[in-house]
Amino acid sequence: MTTVAASTTDPRAAAELVARHRPGHALEAPFYISQDLFDLDIATVFARHWFFVASEAEIREPGDYLTIDIGDYSVIVLRDDDEEVAAFHNVCRHRGARLLNEDRGAVGNLVCSYHQWTYATDGSLLTAGLQAPGFDKSCFGLKRVHARSVDGLVFICLAADPPADFDDVAGLVTPYLAAHQLRHTKVAAQEDLVEQGNWKLVMENNRECYHCEGGHPELTCTFFPTYGYAPDAIPKRLQPAHTRYLEAQAALERACEQRGLPHAPIEELSGRPTAFRVQREALDGAGESYTRDGSAASRRLLGELDSPRLGRLSVHYQPNSWFHFLADHAITFSVIPLAADRTLVRTTWLVHEDAVEGVDYDLATLTDVWHQTNHQDSTFVARAQAGVRSPAYVPGPYSPTETHVDAFVTWYLERLQEALG
Amino acid sequence: MTTVAASTTDPRAAAELVARHRPGHALEAPFYISQDLFDLDIATVFARHWFFVASEAEIREPGDYLTIDIGDYSVIVLRDDDEEVAAFHNVCRHRGARLLNEDRGAVGNLVCSYHQWTYATDGSLLTAGLQAPGFDKSCFGLKRVHARSVDGLVFICLAADPPADFDDVAGLVTPYLAAHQLRHTKVAAQEDLVEQGNWKLVMENNRECYHCEGGHPELTCTFFPTYGYAPDAIPKRLQPAHTRYLEAQAALERACEQRGLPHAPIEELSGRPTAFRVQREALDGAGESYTRDGSAASRRLLGELDSPRLGRLSVHYQPNSWFHFLADHAITFSVIPLAADRTLVRTTWLVHEDAVEGVDYDLATLTDVWHQTNHQDSTFVARAQAGVRSPAYVPGPYSPTETHVDAFVTWYLERLQEALG
Amino acid sequence: MTTVAASTTDPRAAAELVARHRPGHALEAPFYISQDLFDLDIATVFARHWFFVASEAEIREPGDYLTIDIGDYSVIVLRDDDEEVAAFHNVCRHRGARLLNEDRGAVGNLVCSYHQWTYATDGSLLTAGLQAPGFDKSCFGLKRVHARSVDGLVFICLAADPPADFDDVAGLVTPYLAAHQLRHTKVAAQEDLVEQGNWKLVMENNRECYHCEGGHPELTCTFFPTYGYAPDAIPKRLQPAHTRYLEAQAALERACEQRGLPHAPIEELSGRPTAFRVQREALDGAGESYTRDGSAASRRLLGELDSPRLGRLSVHYQPNSWFHFLADHAITFSVIPLAADRTLVRTTWLVHEDAVEGVDYDLATLTDVWHQTNHQDSTFVARAQAGVRSPAYVPGPYSPTETHVDAFVTWYLERLQEALG
Repeated sequence: MTTVAASTTDPRAAAELVARHRPGHALEAPFYISQDLFDLDIATVFARHWFFVASEAEIREPGDYLTIDIGDYSVIVLRDDDEEVAAFHNVCRHRGARLLNEDRGAVGNLVCSYHQWTYATDGSLLTAGLQAPGFDKSCFGLKRVHARSVDGLVFICLAADPPADFDDVAGLVTPYLAAHQLRHTKVAAQEDLVEQGNWKLVMENNRECYHCEGGHPELTCTFFPTYGYAPDAIPKRLQPAHTRYLEAQAALERACEQRGLPHAPIEELSGRPTAFRVQREALDGAGESYTRDGSAASRRLLGELDSPRLGRLSVHYQPNSWFHFLADHAITFSVIPLAADRTLVRTTWLVHEDAVEGVDYDLATLTDVWHQTNHQDSTFVARAQAGVRSPAYVPGPYSPTETHVDAFVTWYLERLQEALG
Repeated sequence: MTTVAASTTDPRAAAELVARHRPGHALEAPFYISQDLFDLDIATVFARHWFFVASEAEIREPGDYLTIDIGDYSVIVLRDDDEEVAAFHNVCRHRGARLLNEDRGAVGNLVCSYHQWTYATDGSLLTAGLQAPGFDKSCFGLKRVHARSVDGLVFICLAADPPADFDDVAGLVTPYLAAHQLRHTKVAAQEDLVEQGNWKLVMENNRECYHCEGGHPELTCTFFPTYGYAPDAIPKRLQPAHTRYLEAQAALERACEQRGLPHAPIEELSGRPTAFRVQREALDGAGESYTRDGSAASRRLLGELDSPRLGRLSVHYQPNSWFHFLADHAITFSVIPLAADRTLVRTTWLVHEDAVEGVDYDLATLTDVWHQTNHQDSTFVARAQAGVRSPAYVPGPYSPTETHVDAFVTWYLERLQEALG
Repeated sequence: MTTVAASTTDPRAAAELVARHRPGHALEAPFYISQDLFDLDIATVFARHWFFVASEAEIREPGDYLTIDIGDYSVIVLRDDDEEVAAFHNVCRHRGARLLNEDRGAVGNLVCSYHQWTYATDGSLLTAGLQAPGFDKSCFGLKRVHARSVDGLVFICLAADPPADFDDVAGLVTPYLAAHQLRHTKVAAQEDLVEQGNWKLVMENNRECYHCEGGHPELTCTFFPTYGYAPDAIPKRLQPAHTRYLEAQAALERACEQRGLPHAPIEELSGRPTAFRVQREALDGAGESYTRDGSAASRRLLGELDSPRLGRLSVHYQPNSWFHFLADHAITFSVIPLAADRTLVRTTWLVHEDAVEGVDYDLATLTDVWHQTNHQDSTFVARAQAGVRSPAYVPGPYSPTETHVDAFVTWYLERLQEALG
């Protein structure tokens, strides 16, 4: 994207790759290893769609900010002086210096360290040293990036005209989130993991549990091993787990209905720009939270919830995130492409804003299952990346337990088709 | 090779470079530094020819395996359940994960860690979890790579149709190797050295001893300094060494004839796909082995050999290896390109399978000369790579002592010509 | 530059970028981040113009040398046996090995470590081992690089036909330098700093002091904060400093006239291949040198100077250097591009050849201000590089204090225009 020469991304070659995709099969190698396709992913997927970057709990006070680097972009996400979430390109309007150079912090105004150009939290240029007559400060405010908070989850969109269907999705998902009151949470822990694979391998890995039984001993303490199977395709050896799941799910649904909590799945993982899936599902074991025995990790429940036994409310969002909301805590995951073969996965554990570490929750217990699971997934992603590079790689068929992988791939190819015309 | 855009390797530009090569002179810079030509080397030289990867001593038991990465390929070389050497692409047929992730090891079946697809050592798919009706396991065996053992030396070929002349070469070389009984050796030591230069600079460096006198004090204890000189071009100062060589060579030939060991040189280093040179030559000093004084490094001789004083049987093989077989041990060298400017050189010291370390041989003595020599060569290769990058570099003429370098370069250009048509 | 494929630098695309430059504004992003434009900068700016590499004090004795790597070139700069400064491509004429592999040193002859080809300090090939009849040593001397010393400052030019106007510039600048007698200095300290930004960002940063007040607390002890302002545009808050500057400058000019030292500015920073600016200006504080209080850092003044209070003689040179000559010491700065986003800045502190460390000068005091200033600048350059990568970056307008930045950019674009035709 940064070359003087005509862009090396040949749209016809990309369109041909998209066109020859074999339905129900994995993507061909160039989608995972080509620099051209990585540039195309940034330009067509990340620069045109809403993606998740943080929860409001990370920027609680006016002036609190974090910076997000994506492709060649750098974006400031902050709470402005009106206490609203806002986002700006992290580029001084003078000679282009990066304005804020820490991952996160708090500022009064936004002051460029180079020549002290100073911007308010609404992006307007306040002072710029001596300038020639005719210099119009109003022309040099920071360039704004679209930002939206969905009940505490912050999404941004780099496009001039973001996909219009985001509002619909926000409207559909908000009723599920409401009871967890994310705006009254705080960050208990955050973990950044740089995985050695393409961002789509990270997403695909998240979209199936075919690998859970063999790969995630901690997660499968509470994650039913039947996840992803069609009910009529549960293998015999998993029938006892399935029966246990059906009973737990029925109990969960009763509990939700007593409390007016929506629980029915909505699944729109392809066929629209803003694609998602939401569902409240039972957990195995004690059924309360992601711990080894399934019991709650925090005694202080989120919002006004009166029972820890509310399973997991899971949201899967495309292009780049997934979320688990338990009665006692919430976990957000964001996927940020760094290079064709390197991806940042940021995991954030949120607890009630009044929960006290060491009293209400133990940090190691809270983070244990997903810390282990993330690292296991990181190994799988690295092995997938290493393998698909081979000229001998031929995409294999998805099994019936990989329908959400298939849906993600379908959605992704729709995005490219739309962009390539 | 991995780009969506049309390949940036312009065959006409490559063909033009080949065509303008000046006979008797070093190659032009792009052959050593261009990513395009590196990709071409992998595609035309390494992906189409037999190259050496290991000795059978490295995979003695069924299930023993090693993995070889070359270009974007990864290959498993193993001993199968029928005790035959076999090779497979190291790529799961499901979603392409790298199957075996260690450099070497031992397995019963080959199990992909991701979703537990399980293959037998003959590559057939045994189990693949739940699959849709109609899934035919027989279509998803591991993709096989051609593998051949020449009296214990394992070669592989990635091409669908390997060069047919390999059998001839195997037939010519085997009588020389036989007495050393490589299948009854074990690995005493192995050293991987990543050299900071193009693989062809590594090969060229190996193909002349012009640099030995100034650069290899340990090797020249036993390596006659006249190596590579035409008999009528021996410089005066080397005449005493030449006389010593002639006497030693005559004695060696008598010893060989008494024992029925072939010793006459065969040299076919260009003009054919599978190019090689074999010759048994005398060593200086005690004349037995590569040590500082030339005496044997292992008391347990290879095979049924009854004398340590059998010089060195040296095989030079293209594209990627050379071998020295002494009476007391053997050394194999494999050259694996890693990038245009980085190359793996793997050196393996083999001794009789019954030789006991500390009793029959001392490891430091055994490996001393070639360990030092390899590291000296690595410095030369790095300096050559650094120098040829300069736009001021003009290929100079080969001297009469560099005929094997010239032969290697000729063979290499023949390979490109053949591929470029 | 090193690809087999047709060069990816599209001259039309580069010419279009040059043509659409908006006068008075910063350069567009590709000039700082594109590999193609980096290659073009090396080929058109550095390979065609005289650039500064060292002072003669670094190569005092015959055989003393240093090596300079620039783009893919490596150059030996040495004092030859006739005590003249000479330069050669650092490439053996045999198989291209890098000849001298240290940053600096001293040699009798230049001997290639690979095959012992041996060259005299005038570049002629003395010996080359055994060669075929007809080998003509006189055809294989080292390739010479143009080298010139301007009163002790060594410049080289890689072009066959260097810009002819260098002699004029040397003639104009020499009278200013003469009294400092650089040929009678020695190196007190040298510091290499690899900055994380394009070489033009390094140069632009040097060409304005807009950032000094906020960014260089040590430098602004003696550097008048009005540097770069037009006299009629001095902001009110800087009027006291301006008055102080005018008085100091008047005193300096009187002192220069008493001693016959030229002091009037000459500024030709664009419009010619060899562009420069020279001026003797007053320093703030004690007015003698770059220290926290402005007093001299070395008691032994340069040359025959009889007063420490002679301000700073500053030379700004394009493409790659600036110099400050004080009464007590001199500092040279050279800028060497390493990659599109990495640049070497070498700072050398010179004192009288008879000055004694610990007696005449304290090394920490001598180097303090510019050591701090360089590191501060390095941070600014890194932030500029990080910022301009963003697709959201739009070049902003230069302020009236950035006229020398504008002149540098103008000169640079002239160079590209000349090369692109």
